[in-house]
Amino acid sequence: MTSGVRRRMGVEERRQQLIGVALDLFSRRSPDEVSIDEIASAAGISRPLVYHYFPGKLSLYEAALRRAADDLAGRFVESAEGPLGARLLRVMARFFDFVEEHGPGFSALMRGGPAVGSSTTNALIDSVRQAAYEQIVAHLRVPEPPARLEIVVRSWISLAESTALLWLDGRRVPRGELQAQLVHDLAALLAVSASYDEETAAVLRRVLADEPADSPFHDLVTRLIGLGA
Amino acid sequence: MTSGVRRRMGVEERRQQLIGVALDLFSRRSPDEVSIDEIASAAGISRPLVYHYFPGKLSLYEAALRRAADDLAGRFVESAEGPLGARLLRVMARFFDFVEEHGPGFSALMRGGPAVGSSTTNALIDSVRQAAYEQIVAHLRVPEPPARLEIVVRSWISLAESTALLWLDGRRVPRGELQAQLVHDLAALLAVSASYDEETAAVLRRVLADEPADSPFHDLVTRLIGLGA
Repeated sequence: MTSGVRRRMGVEERRQQLIGVALDLFSRRSPDEVSIDEIASAAGISRPLVYHYFPGKLSLYEAALRRAADDLAGRFVESAEGPLGARLLRVMARFFDFVEEHGPGFSALMRGGPAVGSSTTNALIDSVRQAAYEQIVAHLRVPEPPARLEIVVRSWISLAESTALLWLDGRRVPRGELQAQLVHDLAALLAVSASYDEETAAVLRRVLADEPADSPFHDLVTRLIGLGA
Repeated sequence: MTSGVRRRMGVEERRQQLIGVALDLFSRRSPDEVSIDEIASAAGISRPLVYHYFPGKLSLYEAALRRAADDLAGRFVESAEGPLGARLLRVMARFFDFVEEHGPGFSALMRGGPAVGSSTTNALIDSVRQAAYEQIVAHLRVPEPPARLEIVVRSWISLAESTALLWLDGRRVPRGELQAQLVHDLAALLAVSASYDEETAAVLRRVLADEPADSPFHDLVTRLIGLGA
């Protein structure tokens, strides 16, 4: 039966299957601890056949990471409908879903374990950060973000990453709380920047105009924006 | 003359001199671009003599990084006198001094270039983050930080790192503004967390009691803490 299945799989189909199997293993344990033998066994094929499709563990790891990066970048895509606070909250929920699904692999990658840190893996991490940045900026409706706004959004993305990593490390705070908090954090960081910079203040006022008056996001931003006055 | 000087230097003295020369070169350009020949020439010794003290470029890079890490960790040390906002502002100024002195090397290291990402370099980066965390927590006077406070302080440290990296990339915003903003960011992030959590709120109230009533830090926190009510 197995060999019958094997014959029916085309090269690309087999590669995709291997990537899926590897991503699952690399997600559940630190990639350092996953062997090619284990991947072969999970895929139901021989070790030499794995090497037929991928020259080594690093290339398979990078292919798995590429799939995960595409997946994560996609989770930042959110329709531009309704209040911004609610949109960002949905994005944060999907981000934490991803982090939860890929926990140990995500930790190992972001903490820069020995198996990682190649220029390819770093480029993939950067591509996800860039996709997240572009999505957030699009939701703020700022086609050409001024330098201060860029710093706020990009540094908030690293805040979200490190918050998620700290959450994974023991899960001592409910993730729902951290998801909501990160949305408020963005509002708070924008407000601090707005208190120094009129361009950021203008963006914040426009966002505010679209928020329902009873949203906590509105409340937070209203209180904070007073600081810029 | 040169060989006379060379003879007078002891092994440890020579090692320290090489580390200093290497740190200077690794700071001013991406470490990938710095060759052992260049280090030898800057130190006024031969290439084989460099290898006599350090088996290769990586070990010299790691030694230079260890010195830089000790230096940076030291800049987070601040006397527990006076208002917290002013203390943190002095720490941020020293942090940006460091970042400015070691600009290209700091960028290359933190962005994970090809020459870096060894487990030693990652452990050194983590040791500085840990030292910074312990200092901030000591200034907040919280001997055993609850999970939420730990997340706020550690994720703010990554916010400070990424803000500094973004500043280096073009220096489009005056560093003084970003230093002050990062102090406000910490207050804002603490306040957002305090609006979810009584333990963090208690820490914030205690900090507030020590701030002069006219400090912007006080103003920011006062407005934000109202959210928790």
